[in-house]
Amino acid sequence: MNKKILAEGNQITKRLFALDTHVYDEGALSEKTKEMLGLVASTVLRCDDCISYHVARCVELGLTDEEFYELFNVALIVGGSIIIPHFRRALEFLEECRRSELPLL
Amino acid sequence: MNKKILAEGNQITKRLFALDTHVYDEGALSEKTKEMLGLVASTVLRCDDCISYHVARCVELGLTDEEFYELFNVALIVGGSIIIPHFRRALEFLEECRRSELPLL
Amino acid sequence: MNKKILAEGNQITKRLFALDTHVYDEGALSEKTKEMLGLVASTVLRCDDCISYHVARCVELGLTDEEFYELFNVALIVGGSIIIPHFRRALEFLEECRRSELPLL
Amino acid sequence: MNKKILAEGNQITKRLFALDTHVYDEGALSEKTKEMLGLVASTVLRCDDCISYHVARCVELGLTDEEFYELFNVALIVGGSIIIPHFRRALEFLEECRRSELPLL
Amino acid sequence: MNKKILAEGNQITKRLFALDTHVYDEGALSEKTKEMLGLVASTVLRCDDCISYHVARCVELGLTDEEFYELFNVALIVGGSIIIPHFRRALEFLEECRRSELPLL
Amino acid sequence: MNKKILAEGNQITKRLFALDTHVYDEGALSEKTKEMLGLVASTVLRCDDCISYHVARCVELGLTDEEFYELFNVALIVGGSIIIPHFRRALEFLEECRRSELPLL
Repeated sequence: MNKKILAEGNQITKRLFALDTHVYDEGALSEKTKEMLGLVASTVLRCDDCISYHVARCVELGLTDEEFYELFNVALIVGGSIIIPHFRRALEFLEECRRSELPLL
Repeated sequence: MNKKILAEGNQITKRLFALDTHVYDEGALSEKTKEMLGLVASTVLRCDDCISYHVARCVELGLTDEEFYELFNVALIVGGSIIIPHFRRALEFLEECRRSELPLL
Repeated sequence: MNKKILAEGNQITKRLFALDTHVYDEGALSEKTKEMLGLVASTVLRCDDCISYHVARCVELGLTDEEFYELFNVALIVGGSIIIPHFRRALEFLEECRRSELPLL
Repeated sequence: MNKKILAEGNQITKRLFALDTHVYDEGALSEKTKEMLGLVASTVLRCDDCISYHVARCVELGLTDEEFYELFNVALIVGGSIIIPHFRRALEFLEECRRSELPLL
Repeated sequence: MNKKILAEGNQITKRLFALDTHVYDEGALSEKTKEMLGLVASTVLRCDDCISYHVARCVELGLTDEEFYELFNVALIVGGSIIIPHFRRALEFLEECRRSELPLL
Repeated sequence: MNKKILAEGNQITKRLFALDTHVYDEGALSEKTKEMLGLVASTVLRCDDCISYHVARCVELGLTDEEFYELFNVALIVGGSIIIPHFRRALEFLEECRRSELPLL
């Protein structure tokens, strides 16, 4: 569907998708820090697809389980117990990423 | 009002307020990283008071203007243009923090 | 402004405003219970004007401070620390209602 | 389930469901414009069921693909990249509507 | 997954989960009232898993269908028609709870 | 502050601000329709600054009071009574725009 969007979508759609990629590029903040920011933002906004994407990216960039738990704690405290079902699904997806030998992205 | 809450609030209120403080303590992730996570979460959830609090904490912990801009870019891309008015107010408060000789918290 | 809306607004606006009044009428659930439901819903959705309205109604219907604190605790746990600034303003408004000799609504 | 709700639901439920239908009736604004408003509102609030309903209605009312893309661009810019997964599912459902010979509503 | 979280999660996670349980304990407000508050909060925040949990608890505590409908009406009026798909799923789950002879929690 | 952001902000910030302008340009959908989409999106997301901006733009593009009311009705039905305080402030700002002889943007 992304291919279709980039083929058929107009200029605005394409530019927003490009910004959505480049905003996580290494800069004054490291790529790892930015992916963590993307993950906590997606978690408090409660978007499972976005959470999975950033979990997979954080795994690639070497985030440890302890770091994941501390990141999700910030999301849980700021966003409340309404976040818990997304937290559970995020941990299940994290386990899947850890077990997988192939890249998940 | 915080003092009143801690004096009159019941156990649950007090424990939640304590968790809200300790979740940002140095751990597997640094205090600075955690405050950045708190700031991006507050920004996409659009709470000006929470944003100001975390901006002041990030200033204390040495975040540079370039780092602030990159953090807010993640919030703007994830959360959209609806974030812009909060972004403007956050930058105004950041300037105020930079000019102030006294701690703002 | 409400008068103007009811004078100039069309049928749909008027009917929604009427539903918004009658949904809190005594029924299988008491008026007090329904106002508490309205208050917790307004709190987790973080609308200060709506919170103040329901706080004043709950005061009129005899809610005690202890009951207010337990209600807000549910909101704080479900909705997270992002609720805290609204909780503080709600408690300030509650104090004002308690001090006032005239009805606040 | 809608039938059951209309059979068993009380007056308030029924009246809200009626308002939810009539708010999209032809008026000063055309039915097509109103359905577009409903679609963009559902998209930024990220409700897949509501999005599908309004996509199907907009197809019935003759919205072109180009118009759909421009509408979703507004939603993507206002609401941010958190909207993207819903945008993808909306486009998949739109394709399904275009292929279908039977009405989807 | 909850077991795993409680085994591996750090202190903050465990404490938040404990608060999330005890906030609904009998107090100045009854357990039933608090579960109703949890249900209306989960409904306006549109979290199906949280809604199902509180529906099952409210069934255990004796909430009648009429009371459920009045509670959901408050959620529908405060939160709007965007709530309707969650309302439908909540009613389906409620029917399942009523039919089940075994506890659903 | 916008000038400062455009002077000091990095490429990502500037590009997002540019997209936020051009997404409302005349295209398959008219500028007026797009501003109405922006207004309804801002209203259900409850951002007063964004609402005022789009109200002023819609006034410039000739939206009648009757059209404004029908647009806000869609927002009120989709988003619920939590929208009402923003609706009231929007109508006050609309009156101010109508009275003003100078452009408000």
